[in-house]
Amino acid sequence: FSSTTPIKATLFPGDGIGPEIAESVKQVFTAADVTIDWDEQFVGTEVDPRTNSFLTWENLQSVLKNKVGLKGPMATPIGKGHRSLNLTLRKELNLYANVRPCYSLPGYKTRYDDVDLITIRENTEGEYSGLEHQVVKGVVESLKIITRKASMRVAEYAFLYAKTHGRKKVSAIHKANIMQKTDGLFLQCCDEVAKKYPEIYYEKVVIDNCCMMLVKNPALFDVLVMPNLYGDIISDLCAGLVGGLGLTPSMNIGEDGIALAEAVHGSAPDIAGKNLANPTALLLSGVMMLRHLKLNKQAEQIHSAIINTIAEGKYRTADLGGTSTTTDFTKAICDHL
Amino acid sequence: FSSTTPIKATLFPGDGIGPEIAESVKQVFTAADVTIDWDEQFVGTEVDPRTNSFLTWENLQSVLKNKVGLKGPMATPIGKGHRSLNLTLRKELNLYANVRPCYSLPGYKTRYDDVDLITIRENTEGEYSGLEHQVVKGVVESLKIITRKASMRVAEYAFLYAKTHGRKKVSAIHKANIMQKTDGLFLQCCDEVAKKYPEIYYEKVVIDNCCMMLVKNPALFDVLVMPNLYGDIISDLCAGLVGGLGLTPSMNIGEDGIALAEAVHGSAPDIAGKNLANPTALLLSGVMMLRHLKLNKQAEQIHSAIINTIAEGKYRTADLGGTSTTTDFTKAICDHL
Ligand SMILES: CC(C)[C@H](C(=O)O)[C@@H](O)C(=O)O
Ligand SMILES: CC(C)[C@H](C(=O)O)[C@@H](O)C(=O)O
Repeated sequence: FSSTTPIKATLFPGDGIGPEIAESVKQVFTAADVTIDWDEQFVGTEVDPRTNSFLTWENLQSVLKNKVGLKGPMATPIGKGHRSLNLTLRKELNLYANVRPCYSLPGYKTRYDDVDLITIRENTEGEYSGLEHQVVKGVVESLKIITRKASMRVAEYAFLYAKTHGRKKVSAIHKANIMQKTDGLFLQCCDEVAKKYPEIYYEKVVIDNCCMMLVKNPALFDVLVMPNLYGDIISDLCAGLVGGLGLTPSMNIGEDGIALAEAVHGSAPDIAGKNLANPTALLLSGVMMLRHLKLNKQAEQIHSAIINTIAEGKYRTADLGGTSTTTDFTKAICDHL
Repeated sequence: FSSTTPIKATLFPGDGIGPEIAESVKQVFTAADVTIDWDEQFVGTEVDPRTNSFLTWENLQSVLKNKVGLKGPMATPIGKGHRSLNLTLRKELNLYANVRPCYSLPGYKTRYDDVDLITIRENTEGEYSGLEHQVVKGVVESLKIITRKASMRVAEYAFLYAKTHGRKKVSAIHKANIMQKTDGLFLQCCDEVAKKYPEIYYEKVVIDNCCMMLVKNPALFDVLVMPNLYGDIISDLCAGLVGGLGLTPSMNIGEDGIALAEAVHGSAPDIAGKNLANPTALLLSGVMMLRHLKLNKQAEQIHSAIINTIAEGKYRTADLGGTSTTTDFTKAICDHL
């Protein structure tokens, strides 16, 4: 790809603040001379029987066809009998790994200044099976499903990621002292893959201890790979170390080279439409998308512009203690380009 | 009780550093004029068929009879076909709530100085059911079981705790957006109990968001109540905020007024027998036991002596950056009494 050949990519602006922050991404990309032909997709207003959710068949086809996309926050409409939009996307598109880098932003102070972590989360099974039963009244069970197939592919993704990104260590997070069979299978797969990467230091860490060590000393970790729910928990914890989900990008990886970058924060309906939202998470997710497309130069330029704008501190949105609007902050980033 | 009537209490010194830190508790209690008639219990060397673990029938009977006890770390011997000692105690003694206070220790600096949290963990079911199956090769499932009975009693314990300890708020931690039935039942029970405590502010917080908020601003929380695995994770996270499991006490609450205080850190075999262990977590657990016995004056005295010794900083064990031995540190505490 060159920056002048337009690349087609799906864009889900999403709900609430989604359209505003998606607009910010478009402007910043344009300022950086990245020509993306955005295939904008909007979720339906009724449950689509083919997806059992408000996501339409066309929504899914767009990602499958373009193979790359960017997604804002989606609020699942309340009501029974249909699935969460986020989960439907992950399951239907087989987005098996969720990659969330968390690093301290220079100039944005938190209690931690040494964070540089990558969480890689299995994204399709585990506690998210959706299988629940009431056995007798007052006794309910949920099934956690761990498969060799899903564990192998996420483990393989994690080690390959570590290797290709110059990372030194992969920690497999588990609770196999309690869930010996499910988490045990997950670990067995990590063990197997680790053998193929002798140059990467490999360790297994129990989730409770991992959380304690992360808050005590996040520098102990590098790449973390784990089953679905632990990934949900730990990726939010790690985001908290550097300021929260408003600042951290993510990308979902599927088979056949599919990648859907995603801001994982909420749709913030309280500030929607008020030009107050912080677009950083979606912008940095966009940067991940560009890196995936091998537009590394533009990705770096945009990344630096975002980081420098935040570091300078003159233009910051309210969540970061500033008074800038979304458009002012976006303009400041564009001015850096 | 008066401090001169000896109270009978079970003591499990435990493994590794257990005997040394148990000795420290005995000395500090004696220095504070607390007369406990310790019923010392040692785990067996073979699996007891009546408990399917190395815990003996006598071990369990001792706690059931004395109704109060203190427990050091226990390392489950490696081998298949028997249960973890800690879990056996919780299940067989029906220790349904695990209470872990986490508060910043004056004078021991971490990144956080405003921590004052109580985690209350359901201790008998959830992901700890032990029910796991291989469905077909490469597909394994674990059952998470949530019951109304266990959820109600831990919720009731949490609200009563909040009320009797002057706490203002209870947060129920869950992932009911994914596990609608199991975590949904847990929340329903918390909702029901909350109605009986209009003076306590009640909220529901999704576990991933809870972890993010805990690391960003722990002062947002007060008492947290949650299913077993979330309690395992969050209590360790909270311990990390104030320095780790070496500094945080816990107490397990059972039916009929049974209470087993417990240091939840490991047995640290690497430093066992070397007079290097930090007895703080077991000492503070002992203080919780004394409060349970309504020996509040002595509990406060011992608590202050521990806190002041650490705050002065002259005698600290290696894990806190000092060079004191266990016995020096213990003596320093006794000198404060
Ligand atoms: C919204 C929710 C269903 C989702 C999850 O639990 O995975 C979110 O927390 C996330 O991490 O993307
Ligand atoms: C040792 C382990 C089985 C135990 C648990 O998971 O409950 C421990 O982490 C704890 O918190 O007491």
